[in-house]
Amino acid sequence: MPREITAFSNPLVKRIRTLREKKHRRDEGLFLAEGLRVLTEAREAGHLPQYLFFAADSAAHPLVRALIADVEDRGGDAIETNADILSKLSGKDNPQAVVGVYEEFTRTLDSLDRTRAGIWLVAERLRDPGNLGTILRTGDAVGAGGLILIGDCVDPFSVEAVRASMGALFTVPVVQSGWGDFLQWLRGGPGQLVGLSLDTTHDYRAARYAAPTFLLTGNEARGMPEDYAAACDLLVKIPMLGKADSLNAAVATAVMAYEVLAQQR
Amino acid sequence: MPREITAFSNPLVKRIRTLREKKHRRDEGLFLAEGLRVLTEAREAGHLPQYLFFAADSAAHPLVRALIADVEDRGGDAIETNADILSKLSGKDNPQAVVGVYEEFTRTLDSLDRTRAGIWLVAERLRDPGNLGTILRTGDAVGAGGLILIGDCVDPFSVEAVRASMGALFTVPVVQSGWGDFLQWLRGGPGQLVGLSLDTTHDYRAARYAAPTFLLTGNEARGMPEDYAAACDLLVKIPMLGKADSLNAAVATAVMAYEVLAQQR
Repeated sequence: MPREITAFSNPLVKRIRTLREKKHRRDEGLFLAEGLRVLTEAREAGHLPQYLFFAADSAAHPLVRALIADVEDRGGDAIETNADILSKLSGKDNPQAVVGVYEEFTRTLDSLDRTRAGIWLVAERLRDPGNLGTILRTGDAVGAGGLILIGDCVDPFSVEAVRASMGALFTVPVVQSGWGDFLQWLRGGPGQLVGLSLDTTHDYRAARYAAPTFLLTGNEARGMPEDYAAACDLLVKIPMLGKADSLNAAVATAVMAYEVLAQQR
Repeated sequence: MPREITAFSNPLVKRIRTLREKKHRRDEGLFLAEGLRVLTEAREAGHLPQYLFFAADSAAHPLVRALIADVEDRGGDAIETNADILSKLSGKDNPQAVVGVYEEFTRTLDSLDRTRAGIWLVAERLRDPGNLGTILRTGDAVGAGGLILIGDCVDPFSVEAVRASMGALFTVPVVQSGWGDFLQWLRGGPGQLVGLSLDTTHDYRAARYAAPTFLLTGNEARGMPEDYAAACDLLVKIPMLGKADSLNAAVATAVMAYEVLAQQR
Protein backbone atom coordinates (compact mmCIF):
# COMPACT_ATOMS: atom_id res chain seq x y z
CA MET A 1 0.00 0.00 0.00
CA PRO A 2 1.27 3.48 -0.80
CA ARG A 3 2.06 5.64 2.18
CA GLU A 4 1.22 9.32 2.35
CA ILE A 5 3.50 12.33 2.74
CA THR A 6 2.12 15.86 2.86
CA ALA A 7 4.62 17.70 5.08
CA PHE A 8 7.39 19.86 3.61
CA SER A 9 9.47 18.98 6.65
CA ASN A 10 9.43 15.26 5.84
CA PRO A 11 13.06 14.08 5.77
CA LEU A 12 12.58 12.07 2.56
CA VAL A 13 11.14 15.09 0.77
CA LYS A 14 14.09 17.17 1.93
CA ARG A 15 16.53 14.49 0.81
CA ILE A 16 14.95 13.97 -2.61
CA ARG A 17 14.80 17.69 -3.19
CA THR A 18 18.60 17.88 -2.90
CA LEU A 19 18.89 15.62 -5.96
CA ARG A 20 18.47 18.70 -8.11
CA GLU A 21 22.14 19.32 -7.34
CA LYS A 22 24.80 17.21 -9.01
CA LYS A 23 26.82 16.71 -5.82
CA HIS A 24 23.87 15.07 -4.09
CA ARG A 25 23.02 12.96 -7.15
CA ARG A 26 26.57 11.62 -7.11
CA ASP A 27 26.51 10.95 -3.38
CA GLU A 28 23.21 9.11 -3.56
CA GLY A 29 23.49 7.58 -7.03
CA LEU A 30 19.93 8.76 -7.64
CA PHE A 31 18.22 11.21 -9.98
CA LEU A 32 14.77 12.68 -10.61
CA ALA A 33 12.42 12.24 -13.55
CA GLU A 34 8.90 13.63 -13.79
CA GLY A 35 5.73 13.25 -15.77
CA LEU A 36 3.51 10.30 -16.50
CA ARG A 37 4.64 9.99 -20.09
CA VAL A 38 8.31 9.90 -19.16
CA LEU A 39 7.87 7.53 -16.22
CA THR A 40 5.78 5.21 -18.37
CA GLU A 41 8.41 5.22 -21.10
CA ALA A 42 11.03 4.44 -18.46
CA ARG A 43 8.90 1.58 -17.18
CA GLU A 44 8.53 0.16 -20.68
CA ALA A 45 12.31 0.36 -21.05
CA GLY A 46 12.72 -1.61 -17.81
CA HIS A 47 13.46 1.27 -15.42
CA LEU A 48 11.36 1.57 -12.28
CA PRO A 49 11.85 4.29 -9.67
CA GLN A 50 13.01 3.54 -6.16
CA TYR A 51 10.60 6.20 -4.96
CA LEU A 52 7.44 7.13 -6.81
CA PHE A 53 5.64 10.30 -5.71
CA PHE A 54 2.15 10.71 -7.15
CA ALA A 55 -0.61 13.28 -6.71
CA ALA A 56 -3.55 11.84 -4.78
CA ASP A 57 -5.97 12.86 -7.52
CA SER A 58 -3.96 11.00 -10.17
CA ALA A 59 -4.08 7.62 -8.43
CA ALA A 60 -7.06 6.45 -10.46
CA HIS A 61 -5.26 6.88 -13.79
CA PRO A 62 -4.52 3.42 -15.25
CA LEU A 63 -0.89 4.32 -16.03
CA VAL A 64 -0.33 5.69 -12.53
CA ARG A 65 -1.86 2.54 -11.08
CA ALA A 66 0.39 0.43 -13.26
CA LEU A 67 3.43 2.36 -12.05
CA ILE A 68 2.43 2.04 -8.40
CA ALA A 69 1.86 -1.71 -8.78
CA ASP A 70 5.19 -2.30 -10.51
CA VAL A 71 7.13 -0.12 -8.07
CA GLU A 72 5.67 -1.97 -5.09
CA ASP A 73 6.23 -5.36 -6.74
CA ARG A 74 9.88 -4.54 -7.01
CA GLY A 75 10.21 -3.39 -3.42
CA GLY A 76 10.13 0.32 -4.22
CA ASP A 77 8.28 3.00 -2.32
CA ALA A 78 5.06 4.51 -3.73
CA ILE A 79 4.14 7.72 -1.96
CA GLU A 80 0.88 9.58 -2.26
CA THR A 81 1.36 13.32 -1.96
CA ASN A 82 0.06 16.71 -3.07
CA ALA A 83 0.82 19.35 -5.70
CA ASP A 84 2.86 21.47 -3.27
CA ILE A 85 5.27 18.65 -2.51
CA LEU A 86 5.49 17.67 -6.19
CA SER A 87 6.24 21.28 -6.99
CA LYS A 88 8.92 21.37 -4.34
CA LEU A 89 10.51 18.17 -5.66
CA SER A 90 10.52 19.15 -9.31
CA GLY A 91 11.18 22.86 -8.88
CA LYS A 92 8.28 23.71 -11.17
CA ASP A 93 5.24 25.87 -10.44
CA ASN A 94 2.93 23.52 -12.31
CA PRO A 95 4.29 20.12 -11.37
CA GLN A 96 3.51 16.92 -13.20
CA ALA A 97 1.32 14.34 -11.46
CA VAL A 98 4.21 11.95 -10.84
CA VAL A 99 7.86 12.27 -9.90
CA GLY A 100 10.17 9.27 -9.83
CA VAL A 101 13.54 8.83 -8.15
CA TYR A 102 15.75 6.44 -10.11
CA GLU A 103 19.12 4.87 -9.67
CA GLU A 104 21.71 6.40 -11.98
CA PHE A 105 22.93 4.06 -14.67
CA THR A 106 26.03 4.37 -16.76
CA ARG A 107 27.45 2.32 -19.53
CA THR A 108 30.93 1.79 -20.82
CA LEU A 109 32.18 1.95 -24.39
CA ASP A 110 32.90 -1.76 -24.30
CA SER A 111 29.24 -2.52 -23.59
CA LEU A 112 28.20 -0.89 -26.88
CA ASP A 113 27.58 -3.05 -29.94
CA ARG A 114 28.42 -0.69 -32.80
CA THR A 115 26.85 -2.95 -35.40
CA ARG A 116 23.48 -2.45 -33.74
CA ALA A 117 22.88 0.98 -35.32
CA GLY A 118 23.96 3.02 -38.32
CA ILE A 119 24.11 6.32 -36.40
CA TRP A 120 25.89 7.12 -33.17
CA LEU A 121 25.98 10.57 -31.58
CA VAL A 122 29.11 11.95 -29.97
CA ALA A 123 29.21 15.30 -28.14
CA GLU A 124 32.21 16.94 -26.58
CA ARG A 125 32.03 19.48 -23.74
CA LEU A 126 28.31 19.92 -24.21
CA ARG A 127 27.39 22.51 -21.57
CA ASP A 128 23.66 23.01 -21.82
CA PRO A 129 21.42 20.40 -20.17
CA GLY A 130 18.56 21.29 -22.51
CA ASN A 131 20.79 20.59 -25.49
CA LEU A 132 21.89 17.26 -24.02
CA GLY A 133 18.30 16.17 -23.44
CA THR A 134 17.21 17.36 -26.87
CA ILE A 135 20.07 15.44 -28.51
CA LEU A 136 18.99 12.30 -26.65
CA ARG A 137 15.44 12.82 -27.89
CA THR A 138 16.72 13.19 -31.45
CA GLY A 139 18.85 10.10 -30.91
CA ASP A 140 15.72 8.15 -30.03
CA ALA A 141 13.96 9.44 -33.15
CA VAL A 142 16.76 8.57 -35.61
CA GLY A 143 17.36 5.19 -33.99
CA ALA A 144 20.85 6.12 -32.83
CA GLY A 145 22.83 3.41 -31.06
CA GLY A 146 23.74 5.77 -28.25
CA LEU A 147 25.15 9.11 -27.16
CA ILE A 148 28.82 9.25 -26.21
CA LEU A 149 29.73 12.25 -24.04
CA ILE A 150 33.35 13.30 -24.32
CA GLY A 151 35.17 15.37 -21.72
CA ASP A 152 33.51 17.82 -19.38
CA CYS A 153 29.88 17.59 -20.45
CA VAL A 154 26.86 18.62 -18.43
CA ASP A 155 25.38 15.85 -16.27
CA PRO A 156 22.89 13.75 -18.27
CA PHE A 157 21.02 13.08 -15.01
CA SER A 158 20.34 16.75 -14.27
CA VAL A 159 16.67 17.61 -13.96
CA GLU A 160 16.81 19.85 -17.04
CA ALA A 161 18.52 17.23 -19.22
CA VAL A 162 16.11 14.50 -18.14
CA ARG A 163 13.18 16.84 -18.76
CA ALA A 164 14.36 17.85 -22.25
CA SER A 165 15.05 14.22 -23.18
CA MET A 166 11.32 13.45 -22.75
CA GLY A 167 12.18 9.93 -21.65
CA ALA A 168 14.95 9.26 -24.17
CA LEU A 169 17.47 9.12 -21.32
CA PHE A 170 15.91 5.74 -20.54
CA THR A 171 15.90 4.44 -24.12
CA VAL A 172 19.15 5.76 -25.65
CA PRO A 173 22.36 4.38 -24.11
CA VAL A 174 24.63 7.13 -22.72
CA VAL A 175 28.36 6.67 -22.21
CA GLN A 176 30.79 9.15 -20.67
CA SER A 177 34.36 8.87 -21.90
CA GLY A 178 37.64 10.68 -22.36
CA TRP A 179 38.70 11.55 -25.90
CA GLY A 180 41.68 9.19 -25.93
CA ASP A 181 39.69 6.22 -24.71
CA PHE A 182 36.94 6.96 -27.20
CA LEU A 183 39.36 7.15 -30.15
CA GLN A 184 41.05 3.92 -29.14
CA TRP A 185 37.69 2.15 -28.87
CA LEU A 186 36.45 3.65 -32.15
CA ARG A 187 39.50 2.55 -34.09
CA GLY A 188 39.20 -0.98 -32.75
CA GLY A 189 36.35 -1.66 -35.18
CA PRO A 190 34.42 -0.23 -38.12
CA GLY A 191 33.15 3.34 -37.88
CA GLN A 192 33.34 6.64 -39.75
CA LEU A 193 33.96 9.64 -37.50
CA VAL A 194 32.24 12.70 -38.96
CA GLY A 195 32.82 16.10 -37.37
CA LEU A 196 30.59 19.14 -37.71
CA SER A 197 32.76 22.10 -38.49
CA LEU A 198 32.68 25.62 -39.88
CA ASP A 199 36.22 25.22 -41.23
CA THR A 200 35.56 22.95 -44.16
CA THR A 201 34.10 23.24 -47.63
CA HIS A 202 32.40 19.80 -47.56
CA ASP A 203 28.66 20.34 -47.64
CA TYR A 204 26.87 17.88 -45.33
CA ARG A 205 24.42 16.97 -48.10
CA ALA A 206 27.13 16.16 -50.65
CA ALA A 207 29.13 13.93 -48.31
CA ARG A 208 28.52 10.18 -48.18
CA TYR A 209 28.12 8.43 -44.86
CA ALA A 210 29.03 4.83 -44.15
CA ALA A 211 27.41 2.95 -41.28
CA PRO A 212 28.22 2.98 -38.47
CA THR A 213 28.57 6.77 -38.64
CA PHE A 214 29.74 8.55 -35.49
CA LEU A 215 28.59 12.19 -35.58
CA LEU A 216 30.78 14.46 -33.47
CA THR A 217 29.37 17.79 -32.25
CA GLY A 218 31.67 20.24 -30.48
CA ASN A 219 31.12 22.63 -27.58
CA GLU A 220 28.29 25.14 -28.01
CA ALA A 221 30.48 28.24 -27.89
CA ARG A 222 33.86 27.09 -29.17
CA GLY A 223 33.28 24.07 -31.39
CA MET A 224 35.74 21.20 -31.19
CA PRO A 225 39.53 21.39 -30.59
CA GLU A 226 41.78 21.21 -33.64
CA ASP A 227 43.18 17.81 -32.80
CA TYR A 228 39.68 16.39 -32.49
CA ALA A 229 38.86 17.75 -35.95
CA ALA A 230 42.12 16.28 -37.27
CA ALA A 231 41.14 12.83 -35.99
CA CYS A 232 37.86 12.86 -37.92
CA ASP A 233 37.52 10.83 -41.13
CA LEU A 234 35.41 13.61 -42.57
CA LEU A 235 34.52 17.17 -41.65
CA VAL A 236 31.26 18.54 -42.96
CA LYS A 237 29.54 21.89 -42.85
CA ILE A 238 25.89 22.83 -42.62
CA PRO A 239 25.31 25.89 -44.83
CA MET A 240 24.37 29.06 -42.98
CA LEU A 241 23.09 31.97 -44.98
CA GLY A 242 22.43 34.39 -42.16
CA LYS A 243 24.29 36.95 -40.13
CA ALA A 244 25.23 34.74 -37.22
CA ASP A 245 27.00 31.74 -38.76
CA SER A 246 25.86 29.55 -35.92
CA LEU A 247 23.22 26.99 -35.11
CA ASN A 248 22.10 25.63 -31.78
CA ALA A 249 24.21 22.51 -31.06
CA ALA A 250 21.16 20.23 -30.71
CA VAL A 251 19.70 21.60 -33.95
CA ALA A 252 22.95 21.08 -35.87
CA THR A 253 23.21 17.53 -34.53
CA ALA A 254 19.64 16.80 -35.63
CA VAL A 255 20.05 18.23 -39.13
CA MET A 256 23.15 16.06 -39.57
CA ALA A 257 21.60 12.95 -38.05
CA TYR A 258 18.56 13.18 -40.34
CA GLU A 259 20.80 13.52 -43.40
CA VAL A 260 22.70 10.39 -42.38
CA LEU A 261 19.43 8.59 -41.70
CA ALA A 262 18.06 9.55 -45.12
CA GLN A 263 21.17 8.20 -46.83
CA GLN A 264 21.20 4.98 -44.83
CA ARG A 265 17.54 4.09 -45.25
CA MET B 1 30.16 60.30 -20.85
CA PRO B 2 28.82 57.12 -19.28
CA ARG B 3 27.46 57.49 -15.79
CA GLU B 4 28.04 54.91 -13.06
CA ILE B 5 25.54 52.84 -11.11
CA THR B 6 26.68 50.39 -8.47
CA ALA B 7 23.77 50.35 -6.00
CA PHE B 8 21.13 47.64 -6.02
CA SER B 9 18.67 50.20 -4.72
CA ASN B 10 19.06 52.42 -7.79
CA PRO B 11 15.56 53.05 -9.19
CA LEU B 12 16.63 52.42 -12.80
CA VAL B 13 18.15 49.05 -11.85
CA LYS B 14 14.93 48.13 -10.07
CA ARG B 15 12.86 49.22 -13.03
CA ILE B 16 14.96 47.41 -15.63
CA ARG B 17 14.95 44.28 -13.53
CA THR B 18 11.16 44.10 -13.76
CA LEU B 19 11.47 43.71 -17.54
CA ARG B 20 12.01 40.02 -16.97
CA GLU B 21 8.24 39.88 -16.56
CA LYS B 22 5.99 40.17 -19.58
CA LYS B 23 3.56 42.54 -17.90
CA HIS B 24 6.31 45.10 -17.32
CA ARG B 25 7.71 44.65 -20.82
CA ARG B 26 4.30 45.46 -22.22
CA ASP B 27 3.84 48.45 -19.94
CA GLU B 28 7.22 49.89 -20.81
CA GLY B 29 7.56 48.67 -24.41
CA LEU B 30 11.09 47.61 -23.51
CA PHE B 31 13.00 44.33 -23.32
CA LEU B 32 16.40 43.00 -22.27
CA ALA B 33 19.20 41.49 -24.35
CA GLU B 34 22.61 40.49 -23.06
CA GLY B 35 26.07 39.63 -24.27
CA LEU B 36 28.55 41.45 -26.46
CA ARG B 37 28.00 39.22 -29.44
CA VAL B 38 24.23 39.69 -29.37
CA LEU B 39 24.37 43.45 -28.77
CA THR B 40 26.90 43.83 -31.57
CA GLU B 41 24.71 41.85 -33.93
CA ALA B 42 21.77 44.04 -32.94
CA ARG B 43 23.86 47.14 -33.60
CA GLU B 44 24.84 45.85 -37.05
CA ALA B 45 21.15 45.25 -37.75
CA GLY B 46 20.39 48.84 -36.79
CA HIS B 47 19.11 48.28 -33.23
CA LEU B 48 20.70 50.28 -30.42
CA PRO B 49 19.65 50.00 -26.77
CA GLN B 50 18.03 52.86 -24.91
CA TYR B 51 20.07 51.82 -21.88
CA LEU B 52 23.41 50.06 -22.14
CA PHE B 53 24.83 48.57 -18.94
CA PHE B 54 28.45 47.48 -19.18
CA ALA B 55 30.95 46.03 -16.72
CA ALA B 56 33.64 48.55 -15.83
CA ASP B 57 36.38 46.09 -16.77
CA SER B 58 34.92 45.59 -20.25
CA ALA B 59 35.00 49.27 -21.22
CA ALA B 60 38.31 48.93 -23.05
CA HIS B 61 37.02 46.27 -25.45
CA PRO B 62 36.70 47.82 -28.94
CA LEU B 63 33.18 46.42 -29.46
CA VAL B 64 32.02 47.72 -26.07
CA ARG B 65 33.51 51.11 -26.90
CA ALA B 66 31.73 51.09 -30.25
CA LEU B 67 28.45 50.30 -28.52
CA ILE B 68 28.91 53.06 -25.94
CA ALA B 69 29.74 55.59 -28.64
CA ASP B 70 26.76 54.67 -30.80
CA VAL B 71 24.34 54.60 -27.86
CA GLU B 72 25.45 58.05 -26.71
CA ASP B 73 25.35 59.41 -30.27
CA ARG B 74 21.74 58.40 -30.47
CA GLY B 75 20.79 59.96 -27.14
CA GLY B 76 20.78 56.68 -25.23
CA ASP B 77 22.15 56.10 -21.77
CA ALA B 78 25.45 54.20 -21.30
CA ILE B 79 25.89 53.05 -17.72
CA GLU B 80 29.05 51.65 -16.19
CA THR B 81 28.30 49.06 -13.55
CA ASN B 82 29.55 45.87 -11.89
CA ALA B 83 29.03 42.14 -12.15
CA ASP B 84 26.53 42.08 -9.27
CA ILE B 85 24.21 44.54 -10.96
CA LEU B 86 24.58 42.79 -14.33
CA SER B 87 23.74 39.53 -12.60
CA LYS B 88 20.70 41.11 -11.01
CA LEU B 89 19.53 42.50 -14.37
CA SER B 90 20.00 39.31 -16.37
CA GLY B 91 19.06 36.83 -13.65
CA LYS B 92 22.22 34.84 -14.31
CA ASP B 93 24.97 33.90 -11.89
CA ASN B 94 27.68 34.51 -14.45
CA PRO B 95 26.41 37.57 -16.27
CA GLN B 96 27.65 38.76 -19.61
CA ALA B 97 29.71 41.95 -19.75
CA VAL B 98 26.90 43.98 -21.34
CA VAL B 99 23.14 44.17 -21.00
CA GLY B 100 21.03 46.30 -23.31
CA VAL B 101 17.49 47.57 -22.88
CA TYR B 102 15.74 47.90 -26.24
CA GLU B 103 12.44 49.16 -27.48
CA GLU B 104 10.15 46.34 -28.51
CA PHE B 105 9.48 46.20 -32.23
CA THR B 106 6.71 44.39 -33.99
CA ARG B 107 5.85 43.95 -37.62
CA THR B 108 2.64 43.27 -39.41
CA LEU B 109 1.95 40.69 -42.09
CA ASP B 110 1.44 43.45 -44.64
CA SER B 111 4.98 44.69 -44.07
CA LEU B 112 6.42 41.33 -45.20
CA ASP B 113 7.60 40.91 -48.79
CA ARG B 114 7.06 37.20 -49.41
CA THR B 115 9.14 37.21 -52.57
CA ARG B 116 12.19 38.16 -50.52
CA ALA B 117 12.83 34.60 -49.29
CA GLY B 118 12.08 31.01 -50.24
CA ILE B 119 11.47 29.86 -46.67
CA TRP B 120 9.16 31.33 -44.05
CA LEU B 121 8.63 29.84 -40.61
CA VAL B 122 5.21 29.72 -38.98
CA ALA B 123 4.64 28.47 -35.43
CA GLU B 124 1.36 28.11 -33.64
CA ARG B 125 0.94 28.17 -29.86
CA LEU B 126 4.67 27.76 -29.32
CA ARG B 127 5.01 27.67 -25.53
CA ASP B 128 8.70 27.34 -24.81
CA PRO B 129 10.83 30.50 -25.03
CA GLY B 130 13.95 28.44 -25.71
CA ASN B 131 12.24 26.83 -28.68
CA LEU B 132 11.13 30.20 -30.00
CA GLY B 133 14.64 31.62 -29.76
CA THR B 134 16.18 28.49 -31.30
CA ILE B 135 13.72 28.65 -34.21
CA LEU B 136 14.69 32.28 -34.81
CA ARG B 137 18.35 31.27 -34.81
CA THR B 138 17.61 28.53 -37.34
CA GLY B 139 15.59 31.05 -39.36
CA ASP B 140 18.65 33.27 -39.56
CA ALA B 141 20.79 30.33 -40.69
CA VAL B 142 18.46 29.16 -43.48
CA GLY B 143 17.81 32.70 -44.66
CA ALA B 144 14.14 32.59 -43.71
CA GLY B 145 12.09 35.66 -44.56
CA GLY B 146 10.62 35.75 -41.07
CA LEU B 147 8.87 33.94 -38.25
CA ILE B 148 5.10 34.25 -38.02
CA LEU B 149 3.70 33.44 -34.57
CA ILE B 150 0.09 32.25 -34.61
CA GLY B 151 -2.22 32.37 -31.62
CA ASP B 152 -1.09 32.24 -28.02
CA CYS B 153 2.68 31.90 -28.40
CA VAL B 154 5.30 32.67 -25.78
CA ASP B 155 6.60 36.25 -25.84
CA PRO B 156 9.49 36.60 -28.33
CA PHE B 157 10.88 39.40 -26.14
CA SER B 158 11.22 37.22 -23.03
CA VAL B 159 14.74 37.01 -21.66
CA GLU B 160 14.93 33.27 -22.43
CA ALA B 161 13.75 33.65 -26.03
CA VAL B 162 16.12 36.54 -26.72
CA ARG B 163 18.97 34.55 -25.16
CA ALA B 164 18.26 31.40 -27.20
CA SER B 165 17.94 33.42 -30.41
CA MET B 166 21.59 34.49 -30.05
CA GLY B 167 20.79 37.79 -31.74
CA ALA B 168 18.48 36.42 -34.43
CA LEU B 169 15.57 38.31 -32.83
CA PHE B 170 17.20 41.41 -34.31
CA THR B 171 17.82 39.97 -37.78
CA VAL B 172 14.77 37.77 -38.48
CA PRO B 173 11.44 39.63 -38.77
CA VAL B 174 8.84 38.41 -36.27
CA VAL B 175 5.11 38.88 -36.77
CA GLN B 176 2.32 37.94 -34.36
CA SER B 177 -0.99 37.11 -35.98
CA GLY B 178 -4.27 35.28 -35.59
CA TRP B 179 -4.82 32.20 -37.74
CA GLY B 180 -7.63 33.74 -39.78
CA ASP B 181 -5.67 36.88 -40.58
CA PHE B 182 -2.64 34.82 -41.50
CA LEU B 183 -4.58 32.56 -43.88
CA GLN B 184 -6.21 35.52 -45.56
CA TRP B 185 -2.85 37.22 -46.05
CA LEU B 186 -1.22 33.97 -47.24
CA ARG B 187 -3.88 33.29 -49.85
CA GLY B 188 -3.56 36.82 -51.19
CA GLY B 189 -0.34 35.86 -52.98
CA PRO B 190 1.94 32.95 -53.86
CA GLY B 191 2.93 30.55 -51.11
CA GLN B 192 2.84 26.84 -50.28
CA LEU B 193 1.69 26.10 -46.73
CA VAL B 194 3.44 22.95 -45.47
CA GLY B 195 2.43 21.48 -42.12
CA LEU B 196 4.48 19.12 -39.98
CA SER B 197 2.29 16.28 -38.91
CA LEU B 198 2.37 12.76 -37.54
CA ASP B 199 -0.90 11.95 -39.31
CA THR B 200 0.33 11.70 -42.87
CA THR B 201 2.27 9.23 -44.98
CA HIS B 202 4.15 11.92 -46.96
CA ASP B 203 7.81 11.69 -46.10
CA TYR B 204 9.38 15.15 -45.80
CA ARG B 205 12.27 14.13 -48.07
CA ALA B 206 10.03 12.85 -50.86
CA ALA B 207 7.84 15.96 -50.95
CA ARG B 208 8.64 18.84 -53.27
CA TYR B 209 8.64 22.39 -52.00
CA ALA B 210 7.84 25.47 -54.04
CA ALA B 211 9.13 28.88 -52.97
CA PRO B 212 7.91 30.69 -51.03
CA THR B 213 7.37 27.76 -48.66
CA PHE B 214 5.63 28.48 -45.36
CA LEU B 215 6.57 25.81 -42.81
CA LEU B 216 3.94 25.42 -40.10
CA THR B 217 4.96 23.85 -36.76
CA GLY B 218 2.27 23.10 -34.17
CA ASN B 219 2.23 23.32 -30.39
CA GLU B 220 4.95 21.34 -28.57
CA ALA B 221 2.58 19.01 -26.76
CA ARG B 222 -0.48 18.79 -28.95
CA GLY B 223 0.59 19.58 -32.51
CA MET B 224 -1.69 21.69 -34.66
CA PRO B 225 -5.53 21.74 -34.67
CA GLU B 226 -7.27 19.69 -37.36
CA ASP B 227 -8.60 22.70 -39.24
CA TYR B 228 -5.09 24.15 -39.43
CA ALA B 229 -3.85 20.87 -40.91
CA ALA B 230 -6.77 20.87 -43.34
CA ALA B 231 -5.80 24.33 -44.58
CA CYS B 232 -2.27 23.21 -45.46
CA ASP B 233 -1.34 22.58 -49.10
CA LEU B 234 0.79 19.68 -47.97
CA LEU B 235 1.33 17.71 -44.78
CA VAL B 236 4.66 16.01 -44.30
CA LYS B 237 6.14 13.71 -41.73
CA ILE B 238 9.65 13.38 -40.37
CA PRO B 239 10.39 9.67 -39.82
CA MET B 240 10.85 8.62 -36.21
CA LEU B 241 12.24 5.20 -35.52
CA GLY B 242 12.31 5.36 -31.74
CA LYS B 243 10.03 4.72 -28.82
CA ALA B 244 8.79 8.25 -28.35
CA ASP B 245 7.45 9.32 -31.75
CA SER B 246 8.27 12.92 -30.98
CA LEU B 247 10.91 15.50 -31.72
CA ASN B 248 11.60 18.81 -30.05
CA ALA B 249 9.62 21.48 -31.94
CA ALA B 250 12.69 23.56 -32.75
CA VAL B 251 14.54 20.47 -33.95
CA ALA B 252 11.66 19.37 -36.19
CA THR B 253 11.41 22.88 -37.65
CA ALA B 254 15.14 22.90 -38.40
CA VAL B 255 15.17 19.46 -40.03
CA MET B 256 12.30 20.57 -42.29
CA ALA B 257 13.80 23.99 -43.03
CA TYR B 258 17.12 22.47 -44.08
CA GLU B 259 15.35 20.03 -46.41
CA VAL B 260 13.51 22.92 -48.05
CA LEU B 261 16.74 24.89 -48.27
CA ALA B 262 18.55 21.97 -49.92
CA GLN B 263 15.81 21.64 -52.52
CA GLN B 264 15.65 25.36 -53.25
CA ARG B 265 19.39 25.95 -53.60
